[in-house]
Amino acid sequence: MVTISKRSAVEPFHAMDVLAEATRRRQAGQPVISMAVGQPGHPAPQAALAAARTALEHGRIGYTDALGTGELRQALACYYQRRHGVAVDAGRIIVTTGSSAAFNLAFLGLFDAGDAVAIARPGYPAYRNILKALGLTVVEVPVNAGTHFTLTPESLENAQRQAGLRLKGVLLASPANPTGTVTGKAQLAELARYCEDEGISLISDEIYHGLTFSGDEASALEIGDHAVIINSFSKYYCMTGWRIGWMVVPPELVRPLECLAQSLYISAPELSQIAAVAALSAGEELEHYKASCRANRDYLMERLPTLGFPLLSPMDGAFYAYVDVSRHTNDSMAFAREMLSAIDVAATPGLDFDPVEGHRAMRFSYAGTMAEMVEALDRIERWLK
Amino acid sequence: MVTISKRSAVEPFHAMDVLAEATRRRQAGQPVISMAVGQPGHPAPQAALAAARTALEHGRIGYTDALGTGELRQALACYYQRRHGVAVDAGRIIVTTGSSAAFNLAFLGLFDAGDAVAIARPGYPAYRNILKALGLTVVEVPVNAGTHFTLTPESLENAQRQAGLRLKGVLLASPANPTGTVTGKAQLAELARYCEDEGISLISDEIYHGLTFSGDEASALEIGDHAVIINSFSKYYCMTGWRIGWMVVPPELVRPLECLAQSLYISAPELSQIAAVAALSAGEELEHYKASCRANRDYLMERLPTLGFPLLSPMDGAFYAYVDVSRHTNDSMAFAREMLSAIDVAATPGLDFDPVEGHRAMRFSYAGTMAEMVEALDRIERWLK
Repeated sequence: MVTISKRSAVEPFHAMDVLAEATRRRQAGQPVISMAVGQPGHPAPQAALAAARTALEHGRIGYTDALGTGELRQALACYYQRRHGVAVDAGRIIVTTGSSAAFNLAFLGLFDAGDAVAIARPGYPAYRNILKALGLTVVEVPVNAGTHFTLTPESLENAQRQAGLRLKGVLLASPANPTGTVTGKAQLAELARYCEDEGISLISDEIYHGLTFSGDEASALEIGDHAVIINSFSKYYCMTGWRIGWMVVPPELVRPLECLAQSLYISAPELSQIAAVAALSAGEELEHYKASCRANRDYLMERLPTLGFPLLSPMDGAFYAYVDVSRHTNDSMAFAREMLSAIDVAATPGLDFDPVEGHRAMRFSYAGTMAEMVEALDRIERWLK
Repeated sequence: MVTISKRSAVEPFHAMDVLAEATRRRQAGQPVISMAVGQPGHPAPQAALAAARTALEHGRIGYTDALGTGELRQALACYYQRRHGVAVDAGRIIVTTGSSAAFNLAFLGLFDAGDAVAIARPGYPAYRNILKALGLTVVEVPVNAGTHFTLTPESLENAQRQAGLRLKGVLLASPANPTGTVTGKAQLAELARYCEDEGISLISDEIYHGLTFSGDEASALEIGDHAVIINSFSKYYCMTGWRIGWMVVPPELVRPLECLAQSLYISAPELSQIAAVAALSAGEELEHYKASCRANRDYLMERLPTLGFPLLSPMDGAFYAYVDVSRHTNDSMAFAREMLSAIDVAATPGLDFDPVEGHRAMRFSYAGTMAEMVEALDRIERWLK
């Protein structure tokens, strides 16, 4: 006898399904190029790899405190001082098993079942799926060029009126996935003030920080201490598979989240925590990676439209092009499958990000190398002809 | 503005609080011996370390499929063939970020908010805390020497009658934490049959498999395909800080759990998955570790009672002594704190495992070295005098 819960009926994260199919094809010897998953083509920084190797020589990799090692929490406090000019107590920093764990902890720690939380549409699908699995009401707020694809007090007011409810939380990502939108400091401050006035908890997803090519990359920490900040070593620091991220939370949230983390995660992987400390000092190498992303971005911005994929949103930051595929298909899911099977190029169907309009959109990640971008787009061009 | 959810009001995992305090003292130069956390004193097997070092030379550690790498899933299928004589399809195996992720996935995937799930008391506190955070009703079923500290159909019937509800799930651990109880195959089969008849989902926590010193260590997989099996590389394989575990689930659960895992975890750490494959072949080294645990066990079984700590339960397996401390205190939490601060020996107060009677119990982990056991017990003896 096995029952399956109703709440497990979340949508697949299609990008991960595409990844699984790409893995199968690659293992079968196919020359797959993956533009499906937001994964840097660059390895973890040399300094991080060296730190991990040294730790492996000692051999004993154990549990750490649930909040993370003191070294990493302190190093992250310095990061905010250095990068954002903000003094933050290391005691407010929680190391997590990737930003995935941080989202789960934030949603569990801030909200009770039935509470309503707003996210942008299009947006990162795991927000929606985790919120649903935890019994929360997801309020998808459509964003568009009129507001530079970000959430504003007006759009949140509209969404609440239409849904006939009041929000308990708002999640804003900047740079955003898949739109690449960067929400500037002034706009972020306005949103934070609105949330404060309305008694809404603000979660600021900053996992693409460091990968901003246009616009004003600000942390919600620069504005005040009330927001929950989520960040990660997966993107700018090229450490996806290490599963290491962090949060900065208001002081009164530290202990409740610590108790949840003790039982839900015990601790983040220790080796990844050790490597992460070193990664924070790998500035030059990472700036080279960023420059390669910028070159990929410029290339895609120019070439994708010529292939009949007009850009749907700005590409201020992160490493995604979100494009309109309606000239080629009205079913981006089928299109993605066909493209992978015909020419071994993987991209993510828009339904991941937008259940309403995603059937005519697709996301191409440009986190890989320029050679991959060129080869992938050459293949697409030949295929579409 | 920050709200704190009601559901985040879970109990602390006191062992982790003790660990954090022990870390602080150690960093301050104190000669701490930790018997608080279930963490092997032995490092990960040499073969696992070597595999990780080799992978680091390639440098790129990325996301894997949400279900885990094909290599590890296949190697785990072979493990069941070799160790339990059971043929299991690798497609039913899900690699997880430690057993912590497996419990969370199982609870989310099997049960909806309000469903009742039985666990043994005393038992592992994270069960209770995760179940509560996910809105489930925890039914703690007292276990005792009369039933060798395991759950039986009779005790479950009693518990349901007393609580006035019907169970949706039962979680059984063997070897169990903190009691060390091993539930033999016949008893396990009886429980599985009862669950099947009653429409109850059975979760079998087998994370201490490999560390059985007395009794009949059986996997629920030997009995049938209906239970959800949870296992881990943390204990026998000495890989706590690597955060790597797995589940074996009925076929119809694979896809729902895959979708949940995609959004909640993306994937388990890749380096740990690579190392885990190698760990599965490290038989001889691990059997040496097991032998050292057996020696520690024999030593504690003899000496703890002479210090006024009678054993509360069998020490069939795992690496814990669960003892009665009522001769010394009626407040095991305060006693644990005093012991750490007076003689730098960390152990876990029984309240972690038993909210009702744990104030007069304590758990000592014997996962460390014999030298640590001897020194810790010497210190305790001097301190108690």
